[in-house]
This record gives sequence, structure tokens and C-alpha cells, in this order.
Amino acid sequence: MATEAAPISYEDLAAIEAEFQEIDTEMMRKQHAASRTAYARRAEAVARIPNFWPLVLEQAPPEIDQHIHSHDSRVISEHLTGVSVTRVELEEEEEGGATAGDPRSLRIRLEFSPNDVFSDEALEKTFWYRRARDGWTGLVSEPVRIHWRKGKDATEGLTDGAVALFEAREKAGDMRAKGLAEYAALGKKVEHWNGANTSFFTWFGYVSGRRYISAEESEAATAEYRRRRDARKHGEQVDVETAGGSEDQDDEEAEDDQAVEVHEAGEELAVAFAEDLWPDAIKLFTQAQEMGEMSDPEFEEDDGEEDDDGSEEEVVDIRSLVQSTGKAKSRDSSGPPAAKRAKR
Amino acid sequence: MATEAAPISYEDLAAIEAEFQEIDTEMMRKQHAASRTAYARRAEAVARIPNFWPLVLEQAPPEIDQHIHSHDSRVISEHLTGVSVTRVELEEEEEGGATAGDPRSLRIRLEFSPNDVFSDEALEKTFWYRRARDGWTGLVSEPVRIHWRKGKDATEGLTDGAVALFEAREKAGDMRAKGLAEYAALGKKVEHWNGANTSFFTWFGYVSGRRYISAEESEAATAEYRRRRDARKHGEQVDVETAGGSEDQDDEEAEDDQAVEVHEAGEELAVAFAEDLWPDAIKLFTQAQEMGEMSDPEFEEDDGEEDDDGSEEEVVDIRSLVQSTGKAKSRDSSGPPAAKRAKR
Repeated sequence: MATEAAPISYEDLAAIEAEFQEIDTEMMRKQHAASRTAYARRAEAVARIPNFWPLVLEQAPPEIDQHIHSHDSRVISEHLTGVSVTRVELEEEEEGGATAGDPRSLRIRLEFSPNDVFSDEALEKTFWYRRARDGWTGLVSEPVRIHWRKGKDATEGLTDGAVALFEAREKAGDMRAKGLAEYAALGKKVEHWNGANTSFFTWFGYVSGRRYISAEESEAATAEYRRRRDARKHGEQVDVETAGGSEDQDDEEAEDDQAVEVHEAGEELAVAFAEDLWPDAIKLFTQAQEMGEMSDPEFEEDDGEEDDDGSEEEVVDIRSLVQSTGKAKSRDSSGPPAAKRAKR
Repeated sequence: MATEAAPISYEDLAAIEAEFQEIDTEMMRKQHAASRTAYARRAEAVARIPNFWPLVLEQAPPEIDQHIHSHDSRVISEHLTGVSVTRVELEEEEEGGATAGDPRSLRIRLEFSPNDVFSDEALEKTFWYRRARDGWTGLVSEPVRIHWRKGKDATEGLTDGAVALFEAREKAGDMRAKGLAEYAALGKKVEHWNGANTSFFTWFGYVSGRRYISAEESEAATAEYRRRRDARKHGEQVDVETAGGSEDQDDEEAEDDQAVEVHEAGEELAVAFAEDLWPDAIKLFTQAQEMGEMSDPEFEEDDGEEDDDGSEEEVVDIRSLVQSTGKAKSRDSSGPPAAKRAKR
């Protein structure tokens, strides 16, 4: 222990972390480019396996699984027909849009067959990687409206309330406004449920773990961050992390916005979709197949009363639909546990 | 749901998975090359922070933390002076050794100051990524002897027993031999403890989640695997995963070897060191700093009776040793949770 050496500051450590983050981001771009054709091939294959995605969700990692509750299970097990995760800014880049998109921005799309819970054929949620004035970085998302069938809103008005507030703020031209009726109404709902609303679909109303950060604020903060980072590289004594703004004011505003946040772990859930469920889908599906006989009664439970579209048989006999020539067993013990595999 | 399309076989899915694995492996190489200098810079910085690694371990992810028990805590909190994780085959490659080393092989090294538990200055464990005849792939490791001080073996003879069996098998020229006295002795110990021996250090006796696979077997199986993979790419109907050997025989042998395996999650622990703790070390250290006042009493508990080298003060006032200019707080909410960050 070289206790006699000069002390290290938090800024020194932060600068090293920033360097790692830049490498990570660059690697995510390379990974994306390298795995495009493999993902296309997978999409083609799994489209030919009925109930592929419901079975994957059945084996979802805990970060996702803990948010899927018994009353969400039916619509997922019987009606989920497709999942896709895209690195949305990289896709836009490839389509000739903005260059230098951030690979951490995500779009998660779930497709459903016609059902008696909501009328949407797909629910698509986009998470933008943004930087706030005060140095906070993370994913923010616009709340997504779900068109619930009458009396079927599993989120008890939380997604509707989140959309209403977001739209009211856009109309008011102030994304931090809290004098609005919609703010009070949603705050009341959030306080009432206090994390106890247990529908997976509440996630679609998620905005941010701090507050909504606009593209403009993020661009300005990122430019300032880069300026400081470069100055630091040239030996100037600057704090790389905080680009400006009063931190106390920001903290207060963030607190006010967390009072109207409908989901407590929206970012974590999005990242688990992108980094665990999506790359590991075939492995999770194979696990679900192997669970075979000892299938999870909660997940496959048929609620006959609510199920009036005759779709029960879709759940039955799923596992026989994938042809095996008998070697599935040996894959069980192959490689590290799914959750710990290198991420793509 | 395109139920009318031709069915997909497990072999089709396995081939896609194999393609993803190849991309992953290639990305791990790129990652390794891209982050070398950043890791060197980090090593230099953290060497100047006393108790950096004990604080990181204090915030270790659950895959590691669950294996660190109260009687392991003291030697870790007071005597752990260094941690390093290397992609051992890539390092050997760079030093002019074997080419095309597998980036999944790991070497984890823990360094300790003089203590009253064991006389080793460092404990170093190497995990080799290997492929068995029957298609199993994973990390295998030679058991590492710990030179316990008298009466201080926290593993209750499990590491010694694992080393003794390994050496006896090497001497017998048969790594699967089970007629040996060392096999019977270790089997008895493992059965007795049945996962209830709760020292972190038992991990150093770990061999494999299946059985020990020699470098020779792995090379032969990998060559055969590649031959099959290429044949499949050219349209032949072959099973890519299983390179040969009787699977039933292999299963039986694996079972016999699991009866003398001293650790139930050795591979998972190694991968958590390499993919979570190692890349996230600064973040975990910062978290530990922020825990500051609400520090974990179990971890920092001083057992005065056993501590006879006057080192108590090392634990005290650690947090003041890192200089802050006051912005640590904003890093708290910065970016996704540590465990979910993109892996390096």
C-alpha cells in the first residue's frame, strides 16, 4: 500500500470512468455492426416458432420477471407474437439520419395478436440516452398510451395519467411544469399506489429516474461535457462531470418529478430487455423447453372466464412444435449461465 | 404467427447461437485490446488509494457477495491489497505464446498483506475455457492450495482435499480416476458439508461444473466442432454441438466428478469477478464511499482478539483518504445501475 503517494481525487477517478465509458460506447457500435446479420437470421428462424417469445418471457431474468404479475401473464402467454430491441440511434444513423447517434438509446417493441385487454397491435417504447445540465446521464422516455378495452386498464390509470401530464407539459411549453391539473392528478395516483401497482404495463408510462431531459438540453450538456473533458486532458483543473446549472435546484426539480413517476425501475427494465433477454433469447427459449413437464402453473394458467376468443389451445403443446433430434439435453450444461454470458 | 412454415430444429437454433458466440468472442478480443491502457491507468490510480479493493468487495454484486461470509470478512477488509483479472490466453498471446487464445479464459489474482490466516502473499486462480468431447463448454480450473496457518483453515479441509485428489489423479495419469483414496476422502467431505461450508476461500478448490477437461481433449473437441460447423455451413446435415463420445457415459462420469466438487458456483463466481466487479470497480468503490456513515457493521467489525498485528487502524477513516471537491453526490444518479452497465 503506497500510502505516501499523492492522493487521488474523485475527479481523477471520474476521468478514468469516462474513458471506460467511451470505450464501451465504441464497442457497442462495433457489436451492433458485427451482429446485424446474425440477428436477422435469428428473427427469420424464430418467426417460424409459435410461442417463441411467450416462452422466452417465461424464463426472463429477475430484473424483468419481478415486474410481470399474474394478471399480466395471460395476455403475454397467449397474445405476445413478437419482440424486438433496436439501438434506435444507430438504426437512424444507418438510414441516413443523424450521425454519431448514441448506441445506448433503445427501442423496445412488443407485438400482440388481437385480444380483449387492449386494442394495440404493438406497444413500442423508446428510451433516449441523455445528459442533463448537472451531469446526470441516463435513459429517458416518453410515456406510451395503451388503448385499454373498457374496464381492462391493468395500470389503474397510471399510463393514461403519465401521457396526459406529458402532453399538457408539451402544450404548456415547459417540461418541468408542476402547476398543472395533470401534475396534481398523477401525483395523487402515484402516491396512492406507491409502487404497489403491479402491472408490467405500467412500464409504458415511465419517463425517467430523474426528470425528463429534452434532446436540446442533452446536446448542450454533452457539448459542454466534451469541452471540459478536452480541457482536462490538456491539464486544466476542471470538473468533468458537472456542466453547469445549480445542483440544488436540479435536485429539487428531480424530486418533484419523481413524485409523478409511475414506474420505479423503468431504466433497469429497459436495459435488462436489451442486454439480457434480447441477446439470450434462444438460450431462454431452450430453457423453457427443457422445463417441459415441470411447467410453471402460474404462467400457463388459463382464466376461462375472461378468455372469450377461443384462444386457449394456443398455449397447449407448444414444446412439440420445435423439432428435436435429441441433443437438447447437452445444451443444458453448456457454457456459463445465461445471465452471465458476454453481452451483445 | 407463421405456423404453416417449415419447422425449425434445435440444430438450426444451435447454429445461430454458435454464430453469436463467435461474434462475442471476437468482441471480447477487441474490448481487451481497446481497454488495455485505461486499465493500466486505473491500476496506477487505485494503487494510491489504501483499502480500495476491500471497499470494492464490500459492494460486490450478489453473485460474489453471497459467497463472502462473516468469518471471511476480516481477512478481506484488513488484508486484501490488490485484485487483478486478466484474460490469460490473450496475455499469453501478446507475450508471444500460443496464438488464437480464447478470450474467455480468466486469471483472478488476490493479493494480501501478512496476516494470521494464511501465509500466501497472493492467491491466484486460473479458469480455462474448454470444450469436452460431448459438446459441453465452460471454465475448468486446477484447485489452488492455500497455506493455512495452524487451525485457521476456513474451508475445513476442502481446498486441501481438492488439491490432493487433483495431484493424485495427475500422478495416476487419469484425471477421471475414482478408485483413489483421495477420491473417497474428498467425496466424504463434500457430502458432509453438502454446500454448507460457507467460506469464500473454498472457491480456490473449484475444478469444474462438469468434470476436469484437459487442454488436449479440448483441442481435439474444438477441431471436431469446427469441422462439423463448416460442414453444416456447406449444407450437410450434422449436429454441430456434439463432437463424439457416448453422452450417457459422459453424464455418468460428470456425476461422479460433481460428487467431489467443493464449490457449487465456481464458474459463476469467476465470471462475476471478470464481468461485473472488475470493470465496475471504480463505481463500486464510489458507492462504498457514499455509504459512508451508514457503513456495514458486519464488514468493518473488528475482532480484537484474533487481530494481533496492530492493523486495526487500517480500516478506520478510509473514506477520508480520497479527496473530494464536492461533486461525488451527482455521480450517484449517473447512468444505469452498476450491475447493468455495458460490460467491458
